Amino acid sequence: MTEVIRTSAELRDKVAAWKRSGMLVGVVPTMGALHDGHLSLARAAREQSDRVIVTIFVNPMQFNNADDLAKYPRDEAHDLALLDAEGVDVLFAPGVDEVYPEGFASKVSVAGVSEPLEGAMRPGHFDGVATVVSKLFGMTQAGRAFFGEKDWQQLQVVQRLVEDLNIPVRVMGCPTIREPDGLAMSSRNVRLSPEERAAAPVLYAQMQQAAQAIRDGADAGAALATAKAAILAGGFREVEYLELRSIDGFLQVSDLATPARLLAAAWMGDVRLIDNIAV
Amino acid sequence: MTEVIRTSAELRDKVAAWKRSGMLVGVVPTMGALHDGHLSLARAAREQSDRVIVTIFVNPMQFNNADDLAKYPRDEAHDLALLDAEGVDVLFAPGVDEVYPEGFASKVSVAGVSEPLEGAMRPGHFDGVATVVSKLFGMTQAGRAFFGEKDWQQLQVVQRLVEDLNIPVRVMGCPTIREPDGLAMSSRNVRLSPEERAAAPVLYAQMQQAAQAIRDGADAGAALATAKAAILAGGFREVEYLELRSIDGFLQVSDLATPARLLAAAWMGDVRLIDNIAV
Repeated sequence: MTEVIRTSAELRDKVAAWKRSGMLVGVVPTMGALHDGHLSLARAAREQSDRVIVTIFVNPMQFNNADDLAKYPRDEAHDLALLDAEGVDVLFAPGVDEVYPEGFASKVSVAGVSEPLEGAMRPGHFDGVATVVSKLFGMTQAGRAFFGEKDWQQLQVVQRLVEDLNIPVRVMGCPTIREPDGLAMSSRNVRLSPEERAAAPVLYAQMQQAAQAIRDGADAGAALATAKAAILAGGFREVEYLELRSIDGFLQVSDLATPARLLAAAWMGDVRLIDNIAV
Repeated sequence: MTEVIRTSAELRDKVAAWKRSGMLVGVVPTMGALHDGHLSLARAAREQSDRVIVTIFVNPMQFNNADDLAKYPRDEAHDLALLDAEGVDVLFAPGVDEVYPEGFASKVSVAGVSEPLEGAMRPGHFDGVATVVSKLFGMTQAGRAFFGEKDWQQLQVVQRLVEDLNIPVRVMGCPTIREPDGLAMSSRNVRLSPEERAAAPVLYAQMQQAAQAIRDGADAGAALATAKAAILAGGFREVEYLELRSIDGFLQVSDLATPARLLAAAWMGDVRLIDNIAV
């Protein structure tokens, strides 16, 4: 049975006992509303660690939009059943007061990689991510941490943070898990109406087409403009960004002279979806 | 013999071997130019840990004044001999490129306690302290860290940081060590001329007098004004601050209704000295 722990003190005791036995602890930080993407991370952690902690904490500090925070889906009982089926040892699900008690005053920020795209669209978002992830690493004392490539920029921020602050954890990026029609799994997908859900795969499909065109030598600007028009024609209300960025340095690039990633954020009704793929 | 280590990779291996043997690691972060104050911290670490690491790193990120950074005294050979005599296991003395390699982009900041006094006088200073201390905790994996009360506000910042980011280290504050005439030991004292050195104890003497007056029921504002005048008459060029602050919350107070600390910063010629005492 997956054990539910709510306080960092209790978690510390649990982890200390594991560590005395020489066990490697893996952690999967989540905000709950678990889907197969999260479960693939739990499976990776299970394979590559001796003990697995999945954390569920809807972190207010990383929401720049109160409405998004309020509407974020939550169903802990269902999540717990899924984790139990995956053989996860501990579900760490602290309350907001446990993570940010009175007097809390610290902030971790990562310049550079956190600034464009999600950082530009969601002010303060990555400070919230970097701070809570630092805390979760401290609380779980994990040797390995599993993050999905779905949140590619977040993965880069976390890797930078871990290297910069010499946190003794190895960050493992895991592939995005998709629905059969290609839509990247996301906790926000449940907020789509049936019509929106049916239309949403156009984002990934057009990203694939643009990536293929660029690989085939098309001008990147033109390929992305075509894709953007098709995404809007396909039912998205707004494309916030659709950009080719270098893997190294995360700079906007216009060709494949260096390894690159294609990243997008777009609004389907009042639901904001993101995706990214290798090019 | 104290072993000198320059890279975090080498330190990590050393510490991992200790930890496998169940040893408790103590760390004393310093900027070198060691005096008896530092050595008292090394002794405390020796008594309360199985292995002791003293770090020497003159952290550019915490100097707001380039001249102060350039003039900061450095004598590693002498420092090493002192640490060896104290039975310190490792001197960790990384270069600037090891601590802040190319691409480094992270910052740890602590609001509240870091804002007045030193924080107001030295913009960015405590961000630099919080960031490098976070890094040193990550690099040394210490279970206990020893800091002097001489840097009282820094001690509060570090304690806040450790609590807020759930860093698994216990912060031990150790008493200020003084010269026979009362001057608080500081690496900057060697920059005083013989005349300045002879005059400098007036700072502590007047702080003691003011504290006694306040304890005896004098008005705090009047007692501090009297002390400030005497410090200036005694040879200091400027008193940056001389303030009574609450232990809890670090707020300016005017009486002893709550436990308080008296803190001062003053310039003797071009050397800035700080001190603080219980009231």
